[in-house]
Amino acid sequence: MREPETAALQCDADGRMRHLLDINGLSREQLDALLQRAQAFAESDADMRAVLAGIAVCTLFFEPSTRTRLSFQRAAQRLGADVLGFEAATSSTTKGETSLDTLKNIEAMGVRGFVVRAREDGAVAALAARVGEGTALVNAGDGRSAHPTQGLLDMLTLRQAKGADFSPLKVAIIGDIRHSRVARSDLHALRLLGAGEIRACGPASLLPNDDTLAGCIVTADADAAVEGADAVMLLRLQRERMEDGLVPSLEGYHRDYGLDVARLRRAAPDAVVLHPGPMNRGVEISDEVADGPQSLVLRQVANGVAVRMAVLEALLAPVSSPTRS
Amino acid sequence: MREPETAALQCDADGRMRHLLDINGLSREQLDALLQRAQAFAESDADMRAVLAGIAVCTLFFEPSTRTRLSFQRAAQRLGADVLGFEAATSSTTKGETSLDTLKNIEAMGVRGFVVRAREDGAVAALAARVGEGTALVNAGDGRSAHPTQGLLDMLTLRQAKGADFSPLKVAIIGDIRHSRVARSDLHALRLLGAGEIRACGPASLLPNDDTLAGCIVTADADAAVEGADAVMLLRLQRERMEDGLVPSLEGYHRDYGLDVARLRRAAPDAVVLHPGPMNRGVEISDEVADGPQSLVLRQVANGVAVRMAVLEALLAPVSSPTRS
Amino acid sequence: MREPETAALQCDADGRMRHLLDINGLSREQLDALLQRAQAFAESDADMRAVLAGIAVCTLFFEPSTRTRLSFQRAAQRLGADVLGFEAATSSTTKGETSLDTLKNIEAMGVRGFVVRAREDGAVAALAARVGEGTALVNAGDGRSAHPTQGLLDMLTLRQAKGADFSPLKVAIIGDIRHSRVARSDLHALRLLGAGEIRACGPASLLPNDDTLAGCIVTADADAAVEGADAVMLLRLQRERMEDGLVPSLEGYHRDYGLDVARLRRAAPDAVVLHPGPMNRGVEISDEVADGPQSLVLRQVANGVAVRMAVLEALLAPVSSPTRS
Repeated sequence: MREPETAALQCDADGRMRHLLDINGLSREQLDALLQRAQAFAESDADMRAVLAGIAVCTLFFEPSTRTRLSFQRAAQRLGADVLGFEAATSSTTKGETSLDTLKNIEAMGVRGFVVRAREDGAVAALAARVGEGTALVNAGDGRSAHPTQGLLDMLTLRQAKGADFSPLKVAIIGDIRHSRVARSDLHALRLLGAGEIRACGPASLLPNDDTLAGCIVTADADAAVEGADAVMLLRLQRERMEDGLVPSLEGYHRDYGLDVARLRRAAPDAVVLHPGPMNRGVEISDEVADGPQSLVLRQVANGVAVRMAVLEALLAPVSSPTRS
Repeated sequence: MREPETAALQCDADGRMRHLLDINGLSREQLDALLQRAQAFAESDADMRAVLAGIAVCTLFFEPSTRTRLSFQRAAQRLGADVLGFEAATSSTTKGETSLDTLKNIEAMGVRGFVVRAREDGAVAALAARVGEGTALVNAGDGRSAHPTQGLLDMLTLRQAKGADFSPLKVAIIGDIRHSRVARSDLHALRLLGAGEIRACGPASLLPNDDTLAGCIVTADADAAVEGADAVMLLRLQRERMEDGLVPSLEGYHRDYGLDVARLRRAAPDAVVLHPGPMNRGVEISDEVADGPQSLVLRQVANGVAVRMAVLEALLAPVSSPTRS
Repeated sequence: MREPETAALQCDADGRMRHLLDINGLSREQLDALLQRAQAFAESDADMRAVLAGIAVCTLFFEPSTRTRLSFQRAAQRLGADVLGFEAATSSTTKGETSLDTLKNIEAMGVRGFVVRAREDGAVAALAARVGEGTALVNAGDGRSAHPTQGLLDMLTLRQAKGADFSPLKVAIIGDIRHSRVARSDLHALRLLGAGEIRACGPASLLPNDDTLAGCIVTADADAAVEGADAVMLLRLQRERMEDGLVPSLEGYHRDYGLDVARLRRAAPDAVVLHPGPMNRGVEISDEVADGPQSLVLRQVANGVAVRMAVLEALLAPVSSPTRS
């Protein structure tokens, strides 16, 4: 994905967000505004169903993801939007239609917002380049590139736990960074928010061989990565990494990179643990840590709805909202 | 399923229903209140969309069941709830997440009500034991144990046909009682409402070998079971019973246990016929009986929506409702 | 499908439309009223959610079709209806229930409108013959017989482009007319609206051998069919036609019957191109034509929602609407 083009797609000439494709390309002000609005949604049970009343949003998933889809669906419902669902597995893409034709068709039905999950890097930006003026896309994960709402919800969760000033924070990201769009979005967001120290950890086979980790402390030693950390962000290990020979065994991975109580004790006493889910218990995280007092995993999920409300409002609400102004 | 624990989960210390897991454990008063409220819903077309407006309900089906799911969905819609659907077949449970993690995640998204269908006995109660204070579960069928809303809708249907006093009634339940959660819920409900005589009938291979039929007249003779009965409740014969060798043939089953016009003539002249659906026409019921004047099959379906509205209201409505007071 | 019976099912004794099964059987006045109302919906963004508020509509698809289903769903949403979805592939029809029992069950849940897609010719009419007084069915495509809302949306699209008087129009329909319900509905509608000249074109193996094309100019020469035409309506080529040996190759089909820029130049200078979608680009249509200025493909999709709103309103709205009066 060529960044200047994505950035130009994402924000119009006035700097207003038209699509959310990647945290890379957002300004610090845009990120702060989204987090602030999401925090307001997270704190409130108020009826917000007038915000997007009568506006249609389509979850357009070319790769299945029940949890992300439900989270966006719930966010759209809370804002009063009408939701349409399209999943490639059960659709006429089997009839050979291109994903662009599929999107243009649903757009022609009067749908204004699209939440798109795609297998290929840059696929959502490529679609965004072809839609009409009033149509907004949210990247719900494309290839290994970006999953910006996951990045936003992780930042909101960290802010709630550690305060808005990220400069004193030591954050460890552990796992399959090479194949992770979550890691890439977290890294962009952490840098934008000025995190003091970012440590990236994983076996060499799962670390990126490009400039993804520029400015990070990179290590293959999970104990060192966790040492004194304020936050440990774990990544899901896809089982196909084993089939690909990148990881020798689940047991070995857990021993070397999994977060259990003993390893977590090396972190700061008030360190918090994040995981994007779904968790492989006993692989990247032990049951005790997953269900323990330092785990913010369910808080992340709750924040996911709030963040997606903020994004959908910013992109689709007809009147100016706090996020937009 | 250990009954005292399920009962304790189902109702709080004040006796208020927190979840609906099993008719076993409800009081006569609770059952009557639910049926009375369901009757009001069944009689009225009034707009009830304010009752659960803004409240989210998830149908969480680890085993497929289109009809039960649609019935709950319609009930939730009539009460104005937002509905989210999760079906294991098309979801990330294939990613190895436990059903508890799935539920806790969707709960964290702000969903307050869960309609859960599970394969294992007691699975819904096990989940109910782990949810937060404000979250309510409805058992939409677990293993062979319970399908309480089916029991309720059958009772509502019987009451409409025969009046509220069940003491003079002779009720025959015919079919695969051993594997039937419907039969178990009907039996609990019939006992609680004081049905005069309960007859249980099926081939020995399909009768339970525990205390399920305590107090019932048990027979393998369908003619005897139907003789003078006021209501005949048929059960669906799962085709895998044949593969398991429990039933020699569909033809033989129909001859020995199927309800046709000739056999129905042995019942009381105003006897009614119930079936939980979907019907195997020509197996447990003949076309003539299924579509005949004594069949209440579609009335059961209509009552299903009313009963589920009553249950969802009782569990989720923010203000006190007739059912709760 | 025996036409007098379908017509009798479709309209009651007063000539009011009860179901929409086939354009064949509608009066010119009914067709005009539906198109006029659809035009109003197409032009307006007004909030129409009161029209069907509280009324439930089920999309009952015994054959998958994501786009048609989404279009009806969006139409129902815009009118404020509650939508339930049933797809045979993921449903208990695998439990051996008949499609009539399925429909009667969902009808018993209080659903008033059914949008039905079926594999067999006449299947929707057969269901319509068995539903209750207040229940309305819309045929969303049955076998090769009819797809009336596609016919309506094609006519609305032609009217917008060419005006309400169809008598001067030369319309070419090109492709697999034999197996096409779209072609049959378009032909009925074009005749009813008095199109001046209808040309039917395709290889002999894909032309019907009954009276479908009565009154049409029939040719196997696509250049001749397009010559001077005001509108070219293309049909989708199902890939199984090749497996069945009816079409030798995709390349040959494109050369002989596909619409590319060169062939389109034979048509009138302001000719318009329609396709029901999903398009096989490079087969029945070239990319340049599909995305060119004469293509109305996305306009058809937009009109689809408006037409379906008009149909659902006419069949289900409780108060008299412009369409009904």
